[in-house]
Amino acid sequence: MTPAEFREAGHALIDWIADFREHIPEQPVRAQVEPGEVRRSFPAEPPQKADSFSSLMADLENKVVPGITQVQHPMHYGWFPSNASLASVLGDIASSGLGTLGISWESCPALTEVEEVVCDWMRQLTGLSEQWRGTIHDTASTACVTAMILARERASDFSKNGNGLQSVASPLVVYSTSQAHSSIAKAVQLAGFGQHNLRYIDEDPYTRAMLPMALSEAIRGDLAAGHIPAGIVCSVGATGTTAMDPVAEIAAIANEHNIWLHVDAAMAGSAMLLPEYRHLWEGVEAADSVAWNPHKWMGTILDTALFYVRDTAHLERVMSTNPAYLQSSADGQVIQYRDWGIPLGRRFRALKLWFHLSLDGIDAIQARLRRDLDNAQWFRERVETEKDWQVLAPVPLQTVCIRHEPPGEDGQPMTGEDLDAHTLEWVGRINDSGQAFLSPSLLDGRWMVRVSIGVEGTTRKHVEQLWDLIQASV
Amino acid sequence: MTPAEFREAGHALIDWIADFREHIPEQPVRAQVEPGEVRRSFPAEPPQKADSFSSLMADLENKVVPGITQVQHPMHYGWFPSNASLASVLGDIASSGLGTLGISWESCPALTEVEEVVCDWMRQLTGLSEQWRGTIHDTASTACVTAMILARERASDFSKNGNGLQSVASPLVVYSTSQAHSSIAKAVQLAGFGQHNLRYIDEDPYTRAMLPMALSEAIRGDLAAGHIPAGIVCSVGATGTTAMDPVAEIAAIANEHNIWLHVDAAMAGSAMLLPEYRHLWEGVEAADSVAWNPHKWMGTILDTALFYVRDTAHLERVMSTNPAYLQSSADGQVIQYRDWGIPLGRRFRALKLWFHLSLDGIDAIQARLRRDLDNAQWFRERVETEKDWQVLAPVPLQTVCIRHEPPGEDGQPMTGEDLDAHTLEWVGRINDSGQAFLSPSLLDGRWMVRVSIGVEGTTRKHVEQLWDLIQASV
Repeated sequence: MTPAEFREAGHALIDWIADFREHIPEQPVRAQVEPGEVRRSFPAEPPQKADSFSSLMADLENKVVPGITQVQHPMHYGWFPSNASLASVLGDIASSGLGTLGISWESCPALTEVEEVVCDWMRQLTGLSEQWRGTIHDTASTACVTAMILARERASDFSKNGNGLQSVASPLVVYSTSQAHSSIAKAVQLAGFGQHNLRYIDEDPYTRAMLPMALSEAIRGDLAAGHIPAGIVCSVGATGTTAMDPVAEIAAIANEHNIWLHVDAAMAGSAMLLPEYRHLWEGVEAADSVAWNPHKWMGTILDTALFYVRDTAHLERVMSTNPAYLQSSADGQVIQYRDWGIPLGRRFRALKLWFHLSLDGIDAIQARLRRDLDNAQWFRERVETEKDWQVLAPVPLQTVCIRHEPPGEDGQPMTGEDLDAHTLEWVGRINDSGQAFLSPSLLDGRWMVRVSIGVEGTTRKHVEQLWDLIQASV
Repeated sequence: MTPAEFREAGHALIDWIADFREHIPEQPVRAQVEPGEVRRSFPAEPPQKADSFSSLMADLENKVVPGITQVQHPMHYGWFPSNASLASVLGDIASSGLGTLGISWESCPALTEVEEVVCDWMRQLTGLSEQWRGTIHDTASTACVTAMILARERASDFSKNGNGLQSVASPLVVYSTSQAHSSIAKAVQLAGFGQHNLRYIDEDPYTRAMLPMALSEAIRGDLAAGHIPAGIVCSVGATGTTAMDPVAEIAAIANEHNIWLHVDAAMAGSAMLLPEYRHLWEGVEAADSVAWNPHKWMGTILDTALFYVRDTAHLERVMSTNPAYLQSSADGQVIQYRDWGIPLGRRFRALKLWFHLSLDGIDAIQARLRRDLDNAQWFRERVETEKDWQVLAPVPLQTVCIRHEPPGEDGQPMTGEDLDAHTLEWVGRINDSGQAFLSPSLLDGRWMVRVSIGVEGTTRKHVEQLWDLIQASV
């Protein structure tokens, strides 16, 4: 395709995207397709000759769009917000159009250095001190795998350079809680520790926060057994109920025992753009690594996961390779991001953060976050004051965990499997309707419903609509 | 930013990109900036208020563009081609514009199912049998880490679910060659095997292909020592000289000993789109995993790395987690790509492959690849027939490894450090000039120059220009 052909098709595509975005509120929130339906609408065999752009766009419209769950829909309250602000989309388009290659500083100095700049801007905007250096990963899951490998190597005296993890005589242990995101257990497993070496520390029964005393005890027990405490993953805004582990107390314990402390603030990191919320990760300065996702609530389009460390020498020692064909005279004077993560090659991801910050402005982003926090408190109050409804966990951010617990047939409050069936029924009815989307999730083995507020387009009016819809559904 | 504002800015951006692409041939190939120059052109502190789109675009033009090494330039012959075809850029723009979220089938059924469709199309287009199932990773490096973890878990009876790699009494061993990409050693280290458990098997001194007999011997030696052979990485088109390990013979050995065989065809995978080149990976059907990068020579914009396995049950058993908040009624009927790789969330990457195949058409892609293969042979012949010039390795694909070996001051052919200095001098002169870009690389401890042909815009005329330029530079 020539630049001239691209120009023509590109204009049509921009209009199509703008139209698509304008009409999202009229779409069902959750895709209304059956498993396999989208796949079967495509030919099983690859196209043998080129197609026209207009025919391709018709397929995009007719085959793909119906298969999209509209996470940009103002009535989407599922999982966590996954905003893709149009300002950041422009940055992403610029990245695609430039067609750069990030395998070394030399392959695109601007790609490396703008990433340096925006990671440092984000550091300042979240109140982290100058000791932190950041990079952009695809997801917090990948950042966590990296953190677990950094922990493993510190605790094993760089076993990777010798005979590997197998050469370490005593088991290496990682600590977290049952509230931690599923990617934590996955990271521990992928890094080779083994699931049995992941300790789920007791939590406060209401706040679901890790109990530091229980952590200390577990570490003492492991030390007594000759094990090596290697890593702690502390959740700031855990997925289920946005539980907040007490970072300062955990960091003190981690430092006492020289254990790598990774702070997973995938969701709550956005709140750190608001100075009045930074107490939620107080103590973070004493951690070893921090990850959070601007591609969630803040709204820099996926994939934008920030990963900060204090000890970049350790990071590079663990993650670096230095093949001859990538050596250059700039070595030693510049960052080689290939030595800061798993993949060798990277896209120019910094552009979407730069565009987002520059075009929307931090003031507007902060105002939106505060709006969502207010809406969550408003919603919590509604649920709390309504008969038969329960708010099941504190609401430190924008997610409210609720359950409808009406009397059962015997007049007693519904419990057990009856309650589970009731919960899944009413939330299923809403999700099936396409009018809104909510995530059911398990808490203490029972289903509850997470109302996660924070789509860019979600205003108070939409939250009011949701509450009406929920009440009508039970 | 509203859709209306996006529409206006988007049109301007499309024109800017089309202009940028049109004018690439007038740019220096390698960025002419000093380390830190781009970074220092940005404010050290984050923007406090929103900027206008036109001011941002001026910064993009004036600060970012000079810091780009133009890998889309027709005179770029460095590393490997990293084509970003404009057809695939349109697909990428569509992906950004849609703002979808891939954390489960339910979060965007179309994202999952179109990925299924295009991975299967690519399977057919490269002649792989129906036993293979594919997914898109960011890079072949990440695919290799995944393959090494799959190998580790098969050889350790899923130690990840128990006490981890440390609980396995005998060392697990991986085999490759010194020609293998640096990401192979990195993957072995990250997966916890330890560098000492990576065996570099002897190569043919001219073709640099792994010697199957030497592999057999190494495995026998490890077995005799009580070690556990766990993985083999076979390179099809290794980075240095595009060496081709003999897949069929290696696969026979792997199967005999039940060792996971990963085929790294990051570069050469594109050639498998040409039926007449598929003999280069003959035997691939007996491997366990295969990775290759359409984002290299084929030209589907980064990040598009295909990863195929035969045993998806093993893949899912190793990589899956199933958190409550992501469970849905579709489970078991659909693919959950989060269980096929490291990250939980993914972009709608399939769109760029779909757009690329549909808009450019496979015929045109094949014709371009054949053009490059012809150009490489033409170039090889020129070098071979010119006095004092050497072609240092076979040219099975599009990369020609060359050296100028003139007589030294004593009249004898230049060798050793004199030769190294001469090589780095002439290639440095070309790279500094901005007229073309070539990668120097080490072969047997001495510098040589890789001429990697295959940028979308590189025609015979450009290759002729390069040869003139090279001859004038020595």
